[in-house]
Amino acid sequence: MYHHPSDTICAISTPPGQGGIAVIRVSGMDAFDVCQQIFKPASSSASIKEEKQTGASIIYGRIFRGNDVLDEVLVSTFRAPHSYTGENVVEISCHGSLYIQQEILKLLLAAGCRLAAAGEFTQRAFLNGKLDLSQAEAVGDLIASSSAAAHRIAMQQMRGGISAELSVLRDKLLNFTSLVELELDFADEDVEFADRKQLKDLALQVETLIRRLADSFEAGNAIKNGIPVAIVGETNAGKSTLLNRLLKEERAIVSDIHGTTRDAIEDTVVIDGLMFRFIDTAGIRETYDSIERLGIERTFRKIEQASIVLWVIDLACDTREIVRLSEEIASRSEGKKLILIFNKADKMSADEIARKIADYGCLGMDGMVMSAKSDVDIFPLERSLVEAAGISQIGENDVIVANIRHYEALTLALDAIRRVIPGLDEGISGEFLAQDIRECLSFLGDITGQQISTEEVLGNIFSKFCIGK
Amino acid sequence: MYHHPSDTICAISTPPGQGGIAVIRVSGMDAFDVCQQIFKPASSSASIKEEKQTGASIIYGRIFRGNDVLDEVLVSTFRAPHSYTGENVVEISCHGSLYIQQEILKLLLAAGCRLAAAGEFTQRAFLNGKLDLSQAEAVGDLIASSSAAAHRIAMQQMRGGISAELSVLRDKLLNFTSLVELELDFADEDVEFADRKQLKDLALQVETLIRRLADSFEAGNAIKNGIPVAIVGETNAGKSTLLNRLLKEERAIVSDIHGTTRDAIEDTVVIDGLMFRFIDTAGIRETYDSIERLGIERTFRKIEQASIVLWVIDLACDTREIVRLSEEIASRSEGKKLILIFNKADKMSADEIARKIADYGCLGMDGMVMSAKSDVDIFPLERSLVEAAGISQIGENDVIVANIRHYEALTLALDAIRRVIPGLDEGISGEFLAQDIRECLSFLGDITGQQISTEEVLGNIFSKFCIGK
Repeated sequence: MYHHPSDTICAISTPPGQGGIAVIRVSGMDAFDVCQQIFKPASSSASIKEEKQTGASIIYGRIFRGNDVLDEVLVSTFRAPHSYTGENVVEISCHGSLYIQQEILKLLLAAGCRLAAAGEFTQRAFLNGKLDLSQAEAVGDLIASSSAAAHRIAMQQMRGGISAELSVLRDKLLNFTSLVELELDFADEDVEFADRKQLKDLALQVETLIRRLADSFEAGNAIKNGIPVAIVGETNAGKSTLLNRLLKEERAIVSDIHGTTRDAIEDTVVIDGLMFRFIDTAGIRETYDSIERLGIERTFRKIEQASIVLWVIDLACDTREIVRLSEEIASRSEGKKLILIFNKADKMSADEIARKIADYGCLGMDGMVMSAKSDVDIFPLERSLVEAAGISQIGENDVIVANIRHYEALTLALDAIRRVIPGLDEGISGEFLAQDIRECLSFLGDITGQQISTEEVLGNIFSKFCIGK
Repeated sequence: MYHHPSDTICAISTPPGQGGIAVIRVSGMDAFDVCQQIFKPASSSASIKEEKQTGASIIYGRIFRGNDVLDEVLVSTFRAPHSYTGENVVEISCHGSLYIQQEILKLLLAAGCRLAAAGEFTQRAFLNGKLDLSQAEAVGDLIASSSAAAHRIAMQQMRGGISAELSVLRDKLLNFTSLVELELDFADEDVEFADRKQLKDLALQVETLIRRLADSFEAGNAIKNGIPVAIVGETNAGKSTLLNRLLKEERAIVSDIHGTTRDAIEDTVVIDGLMFRFIDTAGIRETYDSIERLGIERTFRKIEQASIVLWVIDLACDTREIVRLSEEIASRSEGKKLILIFNKADKMSADEIARKIADYGCLGMDGMVMSAKSDVDIFPLERSLVEAAGISQIGENDVIVANIRHYEALTLALDAIRRVIPGLDEGISGEFLAQDIRECLSFLGDITGQQISTEEVLGNIFSKFCIGK
């Protein structure tokens, strides 16, 4: 869908629903004219289009529907280019009744606006050079961020953290091409201006920097979308009860019937500023129920998607049965953090528990003893999860990539720069080197949108935004 | 609960949830100081506390949590008394992530604010003389209004419609007392300064004006809370299906089993700018089911609460049975508008329908033939409802009372002025007359809060508001 950029657009920018106040945003060349049609300042000396106005100002007045006063509002005006979008912008702060919000929108549409598409205000900010593309994308991430860590990554990106790193890379690569191209200009004379050793150092530096950014995606993605934790174990081991304790609400259906949880239910909780995405799974046991069998197969697939596996073991269970299971789970959990919970401690004497734990210890299985059901402190488990996430070692100022589009561009840029390195060793001609470098630059440029991106790419990026931003 | 009025208060004023932007409002003597602790303007020349600032201004900058940038925001400042509350006010327009909203609130609390109680900003506006009490109450009604008619009443009240009417009354009553008191001053001389005929005319005028306002409450209340419509009829006559058609959604459980709807389900729909509150009721039939019997008794009670009764009759039903029911329903519907629906027209031939309608016509029963189940136009029924509501004849500029507190005060004022009229005929002494007039004035003054209202009354009024307004 092509959104004509010269249209004047409007949308409710505050969260949907009823509240004390709501803000309706209008942006475009005609924003002032459109709003002047429906708004009358309380003071005769004020005017939306006031000539002497520079920057932002606030005007108190009334929205009219014909001769009726629809609402008393505050109008903030931002004259281009001193606005979020870079265009003339009006923000109408009205009473937050649903009726009033809708009616003001209707009046704006009648006055010549059209409804903004999702993210269209931010898209305009990008097109008008107020933000680069990675910063614009960060606005969406910032609004969606629900944990301290996700917020920090989005804020850093919005404030140009990635852009700054890329700018360093760009400078290095441009330096590289200028050296190579100088060589090409004098190709006839067969002079090697660029010191190949120096070029290789530069290429290796660039490779390291890009690789570091690309590698940060695993952590960045986990922070942004939640660190996936699969809760597995035999049926009726208390997985759902444990999940409820972690979520601090009754999310999963808990019952005493074996095999209650058939669907993998996902929910998130923030612990210590990190978001964990819990995957409650069907219990693993021999079963003839075909629906449940599907659930078990799904359990194993979920383990593969998780980065942490929380294995819940009923202490009362036959140890041999658990050992049999342990091979299956271990084989599926390779490369993942495994946390063992010995559950239902409330149903056993201390002696029995000690004996069981010793048995498991002999088999190399160590874990936490707890009773998910009783109102015990789950802080130790929360701490284990945060440790297992392994994200705490990220430094305050480390730039983290959390956007898959950026990750893909970085991967392609990495491929390009990696072609350069052996090329230098093999004495490949400057022309070929320059081509790979240009490609590398182009992929990096995609991240910040330096080459004007296509409608399709932009549409795809901004459609994930909320309306009104 | 006593809220100290010198505290600086804060709250999220926009609807709860995630959105493009959210607005956090801060009000109080220290609002500027508090915000200065957490906000740094982007331009070094800007400052929240800028000396030369009068009225409102907008500053772009950053919210800091320690050394971290929490968000990039726009801050609007309103210097006392030029603000909504009459105090220093700061509105922080931040990115609408839940995390950011919460964190900014936390920072404000740490900087010395406390969370605002429901309606506390508006309560302060009243206490600081920005609005009278009836206007302040109208702010809450305005936000809650979900139909054009309810919006119009609230807006008129907020803009001082009731206050203006009361001011006229007050002038008349003060005129009255001044005449009477002049008489009292010269009581020794036994002179009758005030023309008793003139006084009686004045009292009658006041009585008429107060009565008109008090009488408007029935319509005002119906508009504000929805015009109550009871849908009644035999079991399985299609009442729930009809309700769903009116609500345009699947609200009531529809089944072919007789007596499905046991609870009276209430829902509202706006037709032609008027809100109707529909009451789906249990079907009326002879039943041995004790739970259902309770439902039927409730049906009859609901009819008493309704101002419109929508009686749904299954065309296929035995006419004699309907006639037997009609007496019961008619006796309960006295003084209410009754709309008859002959339903399930899809299950009969045109001939059969014509015969049935003729039969009912002979019995004096006229109604609409329709099939609630099929996708037929329900516009005629909607039009009948709007007509039956009888509110359309209210003039554009009629002042309508929709607040029960105002209605009660008007009723008491009416009693007081009505004591004056026979007193004048009976030649009662000016002293007694003056007392009744003072009482009448006092009740009218309660509406606009002219006598400073008690904490308890104010607490009760503003607790119904949303937080942040």
